[in-house]
Amino acid sequence: MTRTPTVPGRHDERGPEGRRPMRSAVLPGDSALSRLRPLDGAAVSMTSGFWAERIRTNRTTTIGAGHAQLIHAGNFQNLRLAAGANGRYQALSDTSGSPFPFLDTDVYKWLEAIGWELGRGRDPDMETAADEAIDLVRAAQHEDGYINSYVQVVGGGLPYRDLAWGHEFYCVGHLIQAGIAWQRSLDDGRLLGIAMRAADHIDREFGPGGRDGIDGHPEIEMALVELWRTTGERRYLDLASRLIELRGHGLLGAGRFGSAYWQDHAPVRTATTVAGHAVRQLYLDCGAVDVAVETGDQELLDAVIRRWTDMVATRRYVTGGLGSRRWDEAFGDPYELPPDQAYAETCASIASVMLGWRLLLATGEPRFADAIERTMFNGMLSGVSLDGTRFFYVNPLQVRSRRSAGEGEGAGRKAWYPCACCPPNLMRLLSSWEQYVASTDDAGIQIHQYGSGTIAAETAGGPVRLEVETDYPWHGRVLVRILESPAEPWTLTMRIPPGGRSVTVTDPAGSVVRPPVDAGSVDCHRAWRADDTVELAMELPPRVIASDPRTDATRGCVVVERGPLVYCIETADIPDAVELEDVAVAEAVEPVATDRSDVGASIVGLSMPASIRKGATSTLGNDIEIGAIPYFAWANRAVAAMRVWIPTVDSAAPTDTDTGPVEGSAQRDG
Amino acid sequence: MTRTPTVPGRHDERGPEGRRPMRSAVLPGDSALSRLRPLDGAAVSMTSGFWAERIRTNRTTTIGAGHAQLIHAGNFQNLRLAAGANGRYQALSDTSGSPFPFLDTDVYKWLEAIGWELGRGRDPDMETAADEAIDLVRAAQHEDGYINSYVQVVGGGLPYRDLAWGHEFYCVGHLIQAGIAWQRSLDDGRLLGIAMRAADHIDREFGPGGRDGIDGHPEIEMALVELWRTTGERRYLDLASRLIELRGHGLLGAGRFGSAYWQDHAPVRTATTVAGHAVRQLYLDCGAVDVAVETGDQELLDAVIRRWTDMVATRRYVTGGLGSRRWDEAFGDPYELPPDQAYAETCASIASVMLGWRLLLATGEPRFADAIERTMFNGMLSGVSLDGTRFFYVNPLQVRSRRSAGEGEGAGRKAWYPCACCPPNLMRLLSSWEQYVASTDDAGIQIHQYGSGTIAAETAGGPVRLEVETDYPWHGRVLVRILESPAEPWTLTMRIPPGGRSVTVTDPAGSVVRPPVDAGSVDCHRAWRADDTVELAMELPPRVIASDPRTDATRGCVVVERGPLVYCIETADIPDAVELEDVAVAEAVEPVATDRSDVGASIVGLSMPASIRKGATSTLGNDIEIGAIPYFAWANRAVAAMRVWIPTVDSAAPTDTDTGPVEGSAQRDG
Repeated sequence: MTRTPTVPGRHDERGPEGRRPMRSAVLPGDSALSRLRPLDGAAVSMTSGFWAERIRTNRTTTIGAGHAQLIHAGNFQNLRLAAGANGRYQALSDTSGSPFPFLDTDVYKWLEAIGWELGRGRDPDMETAADEAIDLVRAAQHEDGYINSYVQVVGGGLPYRDLAWGHEFYCVGHLIQAGIAWQRSLDDGRLLGIAMRAADHIDREFGPGGRDGIDGHPEIEMALVELWRTTGERRYLDLASRLIELRGHGLLGAGRFGSAYWQDHAPVRTATTVAGHAVRQLYLDCGAVDVAVETGDQELLDAVIRRWTDMVATRRYVTGGLGSRRWDEAFGDPYELPPDQAYAETCASIASVMLGWRLLLATGEPRFADAIERTMFNGMLSGVSLDGTRFFYVNPLQVRSRRSAGEGEGAGRKAWYPCACCPPNLMRLLSSWEQYVASTDDAGIQIHQYGSGTIAAETAGGPVRLEVETDYPWHGRVLVRILESPAEPWTLTMRIPPGGRSVTVTDPAGSVVRPPVDAGSVDCHRAWRADDTVELAMELPPRVIASDPRTDATRGCVVVERGPLVYCIETADIPDAVELEDVAVAEAVEPVATDRSDVGASIVGLSMPASIRKGATSTLGNDIEIGAIPYFAWANRAVAAMRVWIPTVDSAAPTDTDTGPVEGSAQRDG
Repeated sequence: MTRTPTVPGRHDERGPEGRRPMRSAVLPGDSALSRLRPLDGAAVSMTSGFWAERIRTNRTTTIGAGHAQLIHAGNFQNLRLAAGANGRYQALSDTSGSPFPFLDTDVYKWLEAIGWELGRGRDPDMETAADEAIDLVRAAQHEDGYINSYVQVVGGGLPYRDLAWGHEFYCVGHLIQAGIAWQRSLDDGRLLGIAMRAADHIDREFGPGGRDGIDGHPEIEMALVELWRTTGERRYLDLASRLIELRGHGLLGAGRFGSAYWQDHAPVRTATTVAGHAVRQLYLDCGAVDVAVETGDQELLDAVIRRWTDMVATRRYVTGGLGSRRWDEAFGDPYELPPDQAYAETCASIASVMLGWRLLLATGEPRFADAIERTMFNGMLSGVSLDGTRFFYVNPLQVRSRRSAGEGEGAGRKAWYPCACCPPNLMRLLSSWEQYVASTDDAGIQIHQYGSGTIAAETAGGPVRLEVETDYPWHGRVLVRILESPAEPWTLTMRIPPGGRSVTVTDPAGSVVRPPVDAGSVDCHRAWRADDTVELAMELPPRVIASDPRTDATRGCVVVERGPLVYCIETADIPDAVELEDVAVAEAVEPVATDRSDVGASIVGLSMPASIRKGATSTLGNDIEIGAIPYFAWANRAVAAMRVWIPTVDSAAPTDTDTGPVEGSAQRDG
């Protein structure tokens, strides 16, 4: 692999490893609006346990499988055609599905993932594949800096003719993020150079004083802020800020779905709720946070927090999934959360993790880390099979035993999608997941997510190294051991996951603290010495949670959780000859933990008594025992029925208050 | 208005008025598979009451408003361009929305409505508008018989290049039906001549021995059977039969939505359930019944009945609406019946009335008339405003108080739609509604739907004339008076609506019969004399019906009905400052009938006690009185919230079985 010189950047000197820049996708500058500082991803390792396994599968299997799929789907072919001298479009006989205008981003996200992975350790296959792809991207870029293989090859070659649907800024945004990853992770500026020229092309036409224009799909805003953070070139921040301000004034028109679809219905700093296409809204709000932090714009930051708070309260699935509507991939009305027709796109979960991280850094509030945890363990992780080779784009919370004709296949994971935004997005998130684990501030170190491994950080007094040992989320004990510490006291802050019960924190002196029941975190302030240990101990009892009465689609149902995990029932977990639709549980059901290593390594399942019902009118009875598995693990066995929300016996009982004759169907239909 | 000679047809002599053909959209031939015979629409009049008012509004307001909309939307302009000598496409500056390939059908359905209306009585404005449109259609037809203004003007002029999406057969199907209406209603063969030439063009290329091809949107099949019935030209029946047999073998490919979308996944005679796009499935099954009846194909008829029975049991909304999914306008899985995201397209309701009528004629079973009644009074009629000028394409069963940004408008009716299939479909159904009211067989006369007016029919012994007097659906008394009867005894069969209670039938001698509780109809066999009366008396108590426990989306809710009417609650019917989402009723609630002429003429509403809840956790209380109005009348006041399914107090009560701290959102979200 050839290295090109580092692009000069203001953060070059901040990393803990001297000249090498910090391996972090998000690096806020010092700002009154930024409470916490990210760590260098290189200073955090997850060596064993839940997340380490997922990171390893992503590195050793998923990224390679993604390369094969990108070849097969024609993404490279599109770039190759753009790179060709004549640039004439030839039919792509080997593409599956239409050549969408955003196909380049799948290459960029996959390259971003490799950028983070190579920072963690060399891999010749990845290096070869990435070098080839980077050369191709460079060759595809027009000499004026423009790059979008769809426009160059299929779309007539004229840039920026269809900002609403063309995804041109969006593609450059992903290119920038890939460039940032290679720069910060590997000190390799090849992609960043390409990205800067592409960003400059946009800036020349749409920057301050230029044409008013925004992309139908936000994404570039956060990338541009990071580009400013890396290069120190203020024009990128100004362009990002300008794009944020221009949105919400109807520039894009109504399109097929109305202007709220692309968040162009209300200014970003005044819109009170999330609206429209979920991924668009979440990427936009990531950029808004970044701009707010860098420009000290409290009003803009507050607007994002207000939307986030309302979203989590009224429009988020229990899995962390976002987006209730398939029609326009959009948020629904408040409390419109159908489990069966849930969209809950994997990309929306990923985007919400990215947004949660920015808000956590800006505010220091544990609720954002709580949300990241819920999404990562459930709605995000359901997007990839346990073996790392098959994906979900849509993550429903219910699939019925009897499905509409031709839909058997729909319930299963796919190796790739015609619109394959989710799989490479998943790759880049898992490749950078250690960046979300901990942070620092002037007081000390904060641990937000738990996994066995090591954390290194600079505190005011000097370098600190920690070791974390835990079987979380399967068990509730987290042991933190100090490996190295300066003499000066500092504060170790540990988030208390909301799924924990009877929480105790035992400090090096053996003192046991019981944090208040609603504490989001616990602080241990002291002068630490090597080999000091702190133990966070929680019980992780199964919890049965009733549906909010305002959520119409899950009225009369409960969901079962344990720790950060949401559970579901699949056909394989109930007796033969029972249909999942006929299963109900008592409202006061008490599930017990069980070993489910038959489903996947280390998996803790739940077991509980249930009743079955046959048909519309027969009464409940026939107590059976059913199993539940973590939602993230569903659809790894035979394609069958699944449900997260389980009807309670009371709600499932037939209640016929009409004794006279009615049309046969009147009691049977909807 | 100029008349052209009658096209010769085998049914010409069957009508009760001598030479004039019968005014009926469906005229099955004598067949072992046809139990009942339709009456001439001209022999049935609805003179006052519920349906008479709707028919009058349709005639005096809706059809004229439709004419203005067709002009505005560019439908005539498309035909005019096709008619032009050069045929070059000019941008349609006055069109709203894209020029869909099926725009011609809006003209045809509107013409069909006028055909039926002019049979009922002259109207100079309608005649002028129709004459002009017919001239235009004739001028637009290519000399070889082909006609589709989209293909001729926009689509490049080459026929049958995109059978899957082109809607070319579909358009000809509607043209044929308009031609049938003008022929049978007015003895005017102008449109039928055009339609025959268009059908012949298709037959030459796709008839027996020709190319294998079917249209992505079934419709022409039933039209071709009627064309055979009218003209006696066997090739039309053969073509219809061929199109039915060709479907279900993958000819259309998977398209965007899979082959089940257009019912091409399984042969029509073996598919066990409805599937895919609801209107496509229902039109297809109309054609399948027609072919089955004419060819004596019991297996094919049984397949349709089997699908219909399953559909009504598992996939039909309580309003009669069909189609749960917006994404592909499709049926959902069994019991997937979300009230908020219901599609329930007005056209699907209309198509199901058309299918129900064919099955009623074929079998004589009252359940099909029951279904027609439920759909007409609820899911169909909700498609048009009380004043006849504004329409719904989608008919949800719930609209929330708080909606997603930019969706305020979405809850209201529109004067027209870019894809405006529903309004003119509604026009033609209401213009021909008297055709669905009664039938004859060798035993006598059957009355299926109740409205004040007169019915004339031929019985074996001679002509019969009846007078019906009723305030149904507001009141449950139906008085039938014999005006004329032969001396020979015959049977008067009256359907017993499933919403009736304590049903009695009093015969001319004063004998009172109490039919069994589950009787679908009652027979009165006797030698009738003029002035004999039969009284069908029913109580129409409000009924409270619990949701089927298998219907996830309405678990823990009840629906309130009275007679054939499904009721709903709108914001205007609950106290100020209460949100509709916070209203619950007792499972044993007993609504009482109230006068609601404030909403619309004669409307009987319901009133009942209810509880309100504030937020997720506060308990229920604060008894209030709420009103409910018939579903068909919703959205005629201010655009606001509405719901058909009402949560019960038990299901609405917060049930928190988890006493420990959970993430703030865990109890609030999905």
